[in-house]
Amino acid sequence: MSKQNDKLVKAANKPAELSRKLHPFYRGKIEIVPKCRVKSMDDFAIWYSPGVAAVCSDIYKNPELVYEFTNKWNSVAVVSDGTRVLGLGDIGAKAAMPVMEGKALLFKYLGGVDAYPICLDTKDENKIIETVKLLHPSFGGINLEDISQPKCFPILQTLRKECAIPVWHDDQQGTALVTLAGLINALKVVGKKASKIKVAMVGSGAANICIARLIMLYGVKPENIIMTDSKGTLHRERTDIKANNPERWKLCLETNKGGVIGHIKEAMENADALIALSAPGPGVIEPEWIKKMAKNPIVFACANPTPEIWPWEAKEAGAAVVATGRSDFPNQVNNSLGFPGLFRGVLDVRARTITDTMCITAAVELANCIPDNKIKPGKILPTMENREVFAKVAAAVGVKAVKEKIADKKLSYDKLFSQANEIIARSRAITDTMMKKKLIKNR
Amino acid sequence: MSKQNDKLVKAANKPAELSRKLHPFYRGKIEIVPKCRVKSMDDFAIWYSPGVAAVCSDIYKNPELVYEFTNKWNSVAVVSDGTRVLGLGDIGAKAAMPVMEGKALLFKYLGGVDAYPICLDTKDENKIIETVKLLHPSFGGINLEDISQPKCFPILQTLRKECAIPVWHDDQQGTALVTLAGLINALKVVGKKASKIKVAMVGSGAANICIARLIMLYGVKPENIIMTDSKGTLHRERTDIKANNPERWKLCLETNKGGVIGHIKEAMENADALIALSAPGPGVIEPEWIKKMAKNPIVFACANPTPEIWPWEAKEAGAAVVATGRSDFPNQVNNSLGFPGLFRGVLDVRARTITDTMCITAAVELANCIPDNKIKPGKILPTMENREVFAKVAAAVGVKAVKEKIADKKLSYDKLFSQANEIIARSRAITDTMMKKKLIKNR
Repeated sequence: MSKQNDKLVKAANKPAELSRKLHPFYRGKIEIVPKCRVKSMDDFAIWYSPGVAAVCSDIYKNPELVYEFTNKWNSVAVVSDGTRVLGLGDIGAKAAMPVMEGKALLFKYLGGVDAYPICLDTKDENKIIETVKLLHPSFGGINLEDISQPKCFPILQTLRKECAIPVWHDDQQGTALVTLAGLINALKVVGKKASKIKVAMVGSGAANICIARLIMLYGVKPENIIMTDSKGTLHRERTDIKANNPERWKLCLETNKGGVIGHIKEAMENADALIALSAPGPGVIEPEWIKKMAKNPIVFACANPTPEIWPWEAKEAGAAVVATGRSDFPNQVNNSLGFPGLFRGVLDVRARTITDTMCITAAVELANCIPDNKIKPGKILPTMENREVFAKVAAAVGVKAVKEKIADKKLSYDKLFSQANEIIARSRAITDTMMKKKLIKNR
Repeated sequence: MSKQNDKLVKAANKPAELSRKLHPFYRGKIEIVPKCRVKSMDDFAIWYSPGVAAVCSDIYKNPELVYEFTNKWNSVAVVSDGTRVLGLGDIGAKAAMPVMEGKALLFKYLGGVDAYPICLDTKDENKIIETVKLLHPSFGGINLEDISQPKCFPILQTLRKECAIPVWHDDQQGTALVTLAGLINALKVVGKKASKIKVAMVGSGAANICIARLIMLYGVKPENIIMTDSKGTLHRERTDIKANNPERWKLCLETNKGGVIGHIKEAMENADALIALSAPGPGVIEPEWIKKMAKNPIVFACANPTPEIWPWEAKEAGAAVVATGRSDFPNQVNNSLGFPGLFRGVLDVRARTITDTMCITAAVELANCIPDNKIKPGKILPTMENREVFAKVAAAVGVKAVKEKIADKKLSYDKLFSQANEIIARSRAITDTMMKKKLIKNR
């Protein structure tokens, strides 16, 4: 195993090496370019003073026109305070910038969405909320990113209620969306129903708390879920949680009806599925514990950069389906499969918020991107290579928002799909053209 | 005259017509695109998780590296609260968006700077200051725009002192920069010296107050300046000003040593130059008043959209040089000649602030873009068509910042010039390529 480990470690370090080499070469992963004609300097009289005054006046009279006359309709702020960046923790706003720029790159390349990185020089919950509200006129949506818990919960909740544009926290909702999609197809593999399964959830961070909410809404019974945090299973006697983490406390009350007290091992006993988003492994999950799960168990070991248990160990211990967060193993639970299409749909129907039911619709659509007869233990999720995935998710989310009467534009699935496809195709064509013309240098 | 007027009015309305037609066609004047290679989805392991963690850690250890690993070095926020948009007044954040997007377009096309429109949903002075400070990690500089006076003065002053990145208010400093450049060459036309001239300044808005400060620093004697506002000349008895506009009050004390009491007419008597940035004309400045100015008077009638007096009327009344704010008359005092190159230079040497002396250096360089033997009464300023203007201003500003020891990168004029030229050429090549490849549709 040590030789395989060495190879894996080497492969796992490769992106970091390239990252250190290529970031200073490009000095930024996104830039801003004109998207209107500039035939000559005369055109600036249209785009700027004096001509622009006409459309300003029109928006003043009818503020909704800002969606027609500016790029607001397609703009998302990627907002972070840098307090929980990747696995690095609280490294601050500046050090968070490469991640937020990377996110903006994914937004554009995969979803055709213009996202801008906004890293805030504050860690204060109320200031983050206030600043996002002050920024809303320039944007069509907000993507919160890498904000530590527990404050990320009230920040999201407050902004979902009070901000004039849709607000999303990808570490919660985005991860939940893709995890649920994976779970849906994993259940097809093992022939089990959500309403019947027992689920062990290891880790009670922002992601797993949101996943719990979403899978319950999807049909998993609260009483059949047992969650753990670093101190053990969540249950009604966990008064240590009550004081400082209301979201987690809610789950202490709702889940684990049997009142199982213990640790990961106890939570996993007889479980049909394990959803672990806890600490980097290997060794966090023991093969022995998997052996004590129900028949044909599903194992999601999604800690980054190293899963809680190596996939081959989980398989050896009897897991029927194994998913991780890594691109070098099968079944990557990859947020990038979710948010670009979801936001594409949200923006295209001009949804006023993003409901949990829209999120479930997105998960179901994402799962359906693999026809039932193509689903396999090693193939429960599509990959980013399949471009249509994003347009399908966009269309499904858009239609759902229309049905829920929270969309300002009532468009059909087909219209939304073709429109999203076109926008995303153009976005890739821009990148390809810039590379071909050496406006993006090859290195 | 009425026929000429009709023609002018029609021509003046043309940009507004096109603006109303083309804004909804493009639905945004800027967009965000990748500026790093994306050969395949595998590259996202470099640009995002897991590879990106390496450069995040490096920035955490040495925050200055954010300038090397991200686009911060080239990013400017165009910040407005929409309280004084063009000639339209307080139309709010959303209605200000087309202007701020237009500004971002100019920033990129003319200066190669990535500018992002940030329209804030507040009019509160302190909240604007606080928000800009919170935003600073993502940006290399701040361009304040269309913020009403008098609050624009303390906002700029406070941010110049307290913000970690350079802050500029283009309505003050940018207008002053280009006006001073025009004045420098106009003085060459009439063979007068700044230290000897009398100047009448009509209007005491943010721009003229800053112009007064700058031309005094350049060499015009405070006692030789007479300013006016809507109530008449500024002087020591104007206690109405003392209470609510400290900047204007300062000028009441410094200028008009003769204590001239009266209105525009009195201010202009015997003046060598008129600098009017007041109310749209014609008819604000009477030809008779120009006749009472000193020999070979210089007239800047820069109100938008219509100058305080038609240029031909000013000429007939004896003006030796006439400048306006309009592109359809000779000698356009155009902010776009200033800020793109200035910011290019500021960003390229990583200046920690933008001093008034840097602003004067930019003005002198801009004036020098026309060789002395080519300066004519109808040609005191270069036009945007001359691409080198921006690189020259950038280089001069950069060198000045280095001399003033407020630059983190010590680069020579030649190095800065060639670098700026290259960046700006690339920025235009992107636009041209996108138009050619129909990624920007022709209309």
